Amino acid sequence: MNATHAHRKGRVSLVGAGPGDPELLTLRAWRRIQDAETVCYDQLVGDPILGLIPNDARRIPVGKVGGGPSTSQDEIHRILAREALAGRRVVRLKGGDPFVFGRGGEEALFLARLGIPVEVVPGLSSAIAGPAAAAIPVTHRGLSTSVTIVTGAAARGADPALRESWAHLARAGGTLVVLMSLRRLQTILDTLTAAGLPANTPAAMVQAATLDDQRVVTGTAACLPQAVATAGLGSPALLVVGEVVRVRDQLHTLVGPLAFEQLGQNVASARGGHDAPGDAGDTPIHAHDARP
Amino acid sequence: MNATHAHRKGRVSLVGAGPGDPELLTLRAWRRIQDAETVCYDQLVGDPILGLIPNDARRIPVGKVGGGPSTSQDEIHRILAREALAGRRVVRLKGGDPFVFGRGGEEALFLARLGIPVEVVPGLSSAIAGPAAAAIPVTHRGLSTSVTIVTGAAARGADPALRESWAHLARAGGTLVVLMSLRRLQTILDTLTAAGLPANTPAAMVQAATLDDQRVVTGTAACLPQAVATAGLGSPALLVVGEVVRVRDQLHTLVGPLAFEQLGQNVASARGGHDAPGDAGDTPIHAHDARP
Repeated sequence: MNATHAHRKGRVSLVGAGPGDPELLTLRAWRRIQDAETVCYDQLVGDPILGLIPNDARRIPVGKVGGGPSTSQDEIHRILAREALAGRRVVRLKGGDPFVFGRGGEEALFLARLGIPVEVVPGLSSAIAGPAAAAIPVTHRGLSTSVTIVTGAAARGADPALRESWAHLARAGGTLVVLMSLRRLQTILDTLTAAGLPANTPAAMVQAATLDDQRVVTGTAACLPQAVATAGLGSPALLVVGEVVRVRDQLHTLVGPLAFEQLGQNVASARGGHDAPGDAGDTPIHAHDARP
Repeated sequence: MNATHAHRKGRVSLVGAGPGDPELLTLRAWRRIQDAETVCYDQLVGDPILGLIPNDARRIPVGKVGGGPSTSQDEIHRILAREALAGRRVVRLKGGDPFVFGRGGEEALFLARLGIPVEVVPGLSSAIAGPAAAAIPVTHRGLSTSVTIVTGAAARGADPALRESWAHLARAGGTLVVLMSLRRLQTILDTLTAAGLPANTPAAMVQAATLDDQRVVTGTAACLPQAVATAGLGSPALLVVGEVVRVRDQLHTLVGPLAFEQLGQNVASARGGHDAPGDAGDTPIHAHDARP
């Protein structure tokens, strides 16, 4: 940030940016971003969070969105090492949590092998905070005593070990959250139902969880793909399979559609800096506040 | 907070406090605590976070630690409703995430039935951030393509459905994180190995993840209980079972024991308020920093 820091040894912070809403950054993540001299970020990290990067910091986009053009993992490793070895405070900013399908472990090992100091700043995983934003608790007494997080990529079906793994997950009886699942939704649900998951198991798809364009479609394992196609949901989106989806329906029956998951956003969006005392009181919230 | 707010309608924020380190609170959680007029908190929420509660807020401890005396869930519901109906901004503060074995769904439904506005502010689950603090990524390319979160209570064994569920999880091949698992550690690992988990599967126990008294013991499914007993670990503690535990060993070989997971803490503990520009630079961190 200034010349007096130039002699210091660089370091890399692998920082989880959470599901998207900048208010869901951790205090440490926020501070690391504020202090960053270089920020390497995924395409999943949105403008509200990128807006927190200091103006004089280097910004290096390293897109890793499934299917599209992206920077290779080797190239990301090289960039992180180069920036740290130049003495900079580097933030590697990732959607969600660095250790939940974020390849944070690979980056940590690569940097450690070079003797570069590295830390992990965990972030809210979309796999838990995403369903929560849709009023779906991933565990709920009487409905689910476990939650499994997996990615849609694992449902390709070519690998026998993976197929067996999915078969066990289908029968384990807990909540299943499948990240990056929109494109393979039909395959995923077919795999699960073929392995024994009842076709009438409740299921939900959440698009852009915690962001302004959040949308939620619910149904059953059998009918969700058609409902999602009809609604025209887009990426990023996550799938929740399990009885816990019913909690959302119950909450909506009680407080009206979209009310529950919007309360936090309503309060947050109406509030500016966090230093103004008592500003929360300026925005009374009610259970029947629903966005148009 | 002041008389002009008395006419406003109360509300309840179900707030995740994360694994323990106050720097791992989300920005929104921090603001809700700052604005709270009543805070009902679990015993799992420690002093560093309780210290953020405003002096003039009501503090209501509602202990829910397994085994010990605790406030019943019905009583917690009554307290939350009473405080909100009195017009107060109520924060229900829970260790970890409100929807990961936090009974947040039950509380949300209860309050919604009474027409009380309720929101969920997700927190970092110890199930993901806890292993991360011990340098264990819950997923890692080539080692694990799924992570399942469950509690030790589910291993009691009386319920046939639960036993079958554990059997599937033992064979699903992904990472298994078992919260609140210290007392039943032997039973849990016996259940898993009896169901097909190889006895030499790497396993780790993490005590007080992210806090000053964090301790980690690693071993295999077969030998971990004895290693944990010898080390004298105490609650709260979580169990990680899976090949990902090897990543910790690799990182330690590279950067020295305890270095990786302490880097963040070293920086954080040496830093005061987050408004001092450039204070991160006052604490150069190195891969070989290890606490005595």
